[in-house]
Amino acid sequence: MTLPTAVRIVEVGPRDGLQNEKQPVATETKLGLIHRLAEAGLSTIEATSFVSPKWVPQMADHAEIVAGLKRKPGVRYPVLVPNLKGLEGALAAGVDEIAVFVAASEAFSQKNINCSIAESLERVAAVVEGARAAGVPVRGYVSCVLGCPYEGDIAASQVVSVADSLHQMGCYEISLGDTIGVGTAGKARALFEQVSRKVPLPQLAGHFHDTYGQALSNVYAALEVGVSVFDASVSGLGGCPYAKGATGNLATEDLLYLLNGLEIHTGVDMTALCAAGQYICDALGRPSQSRVARALAARAS
Amino acid sequence: MTLPTAVRIVEVGPRDGLQNEKQPVATETKLGLIHRLAEAGLSTIEATSFVSPKWVPQMADHAEIVAGLKRKPGVRYPVLVPNLKGLEGALAAGVDEIAVFVAASEAFSQKNINCSIAESLERVAAVVEGARAAGVPVRGYVSCVLGCPYEGDIAASQVVSVADSLHQMGCYEISLGDTIGVGTAGKARALFEQVSRKVPLPQLAGHFHDTYGQALSNVYAALEVGVSVFDASVSGLGGCPYAKGATGNLATEDLLYLLNGLEIHTGVDMTALCAAGQYICDALGRPSQSRVARALAARAS
Repeated sequence: MTLPTAVRIVEVGPRDGLQNEKQPVATETKLGLIHRLAEAGLSTIEATSFVSPKWVPQMADHAEIVAGLKRKPGVRYPVLVPNLKGLEGALAAGVDEIAVFVAASEAFSQKNINCSIAESLERVAAVVEGARAAGVPVRGYVSCVLGCPYEGDIAASQVVSVADSLHQMGCYEISLGDTIGVGTAGKARALFEQVSRKVPLPQLAGHFHDTYGQALSNVYAALEVGVSVFDASVSGLGGCPYAKGATGNLATEDLLYLLNGLEIHTGVDMTALCAAGQYICDALGRPSQSRVARALAARAS
Repeated sequence: MTLPTAVRIVEVGPRDGLQNEKQPVATETKLGLIHRLAEAGLSTIEATSFVSPKWVPQMADHAEIVAGLKRKPGVRYPVLVPNLKGLEGALAAGVDEIAVFVAASEAFSQKNINCSIAESLERVAAVVEGARAAGVPVRGYVSCVLGCPYEGDIAASQVVSVADSLHQMGCYEISLGDTIGVGTAGKARALFEQVSRKVPLPQLAGHFHDTYGQALSNVYAALEVGVSVFDASVSGLGGCPYAKGATGNLATEDLLYLLNGLEIHTGVDMTALCAAGQYICDALGRPSQSRVARALAARAS
């Protein structure tokens, strides 16, 4: 079994993490976090979301975030875009990359964005077309790939179909998200094997949540299939909105620890990453959700 | 790749977990926990330790624990035994199985039990001989197999040598423990591959700590090698004594969730296991360290 020799980590904390904060975080603090993450060596940092401030007030400062970025050469700062209005705002702000999302669950799609998967794919297709016409690359997210809070199990064929649609539209990478963290290693492995028959492996990413503590075993199973891009959130920012009190995103520190142990190159420095995590935890006034961050801090004290 | 179809979980919470509590837990509470764990379907439950109450006051009630066990048919209740004095006490109390331990690290052995690995093996050999003469099976633990808080990396050859010695003495099973939780999947895999060249795979167990969040990815890697026995602690009882505030033992609930997802038979019921975990967390007055227990509780609320 050969694992990838290098992995690209897509840092989603500033967006996927901070959008779940009850109190919106100050723009300056968000920018401080993004810049520290870039200094730590992360090459893709999802910076914000161009969603209506009515729905997600936490991301209302999206234009200020993009304007305030001190862009580090070689680092991409994608923003999440839900619709054409969001795309307009993102393009006007001068983003260099966007991300779109579609659920693999009908019930989740209806409850989350009030339309069917087919309608969602149509909307997204228009966004992707607009972005590509403007020369902006698009990353695609598929959510609920290993389970849905409303439907339970999700057929892998459904995930294959949605991922293939995003690929056909021209998304350069498709991230498969276990939104509620219910998946386990065997299912993660089987899913990536199936999807990679339609979408080439180098264009697939894994986005695992640690709600049930399974994220890293899922990552390891996906690495064995050959997946070489993983999403993570510094300090494990972002709870699970469907299970209050439960853990959400896989912590970037925990992912990096695994990859370092496997001698897989990432370009990310653990000490600088932990410092970025400490910075945002201090700002939020609560402890890190990363087990690695906590263990390293305890060891140092 | 074929994973084992069944796994035996060795529950170590009542001993390895509760021995780390600052306030000794009431004997009745410990027995309540042990009985609930047996009802949940666990077939091996490490009940207590026959160590001097001077060193580990938390386990001073070891004889009362053994006397108070309502033994469920088919369930084994091993106790940890550090020396011949402990063996005498354990045999007098009427235990049905004991466990012994040896470190794979010279520095750890010196600091922890004040003797070299070679001396430790001699002491243990006397205990094993005594136990076997009394017809009591012996399980062996090797600690620090993937790293030592004092020495850092530990050579796999050192672990092979200690495990082989315990096997030669007649331990029916050797549990390889990543005491400080620093190991990652590739190293766990390589270690079990190496040790299994000397000790047959069915006689090996994995004992992983979640200090750095790596326990389940290590379990998955070991399952791929063919390991089919894993130690875990309900609710993740037992902190890491070498890193205050950090997580210690892998939570049994989290391990069971992975194994259930892989459709590997364990005979353990998740609902009853979580109830046992809730029971001891209520008694200790603090939240579960198990992500699965917390997510299931949040989902139910």
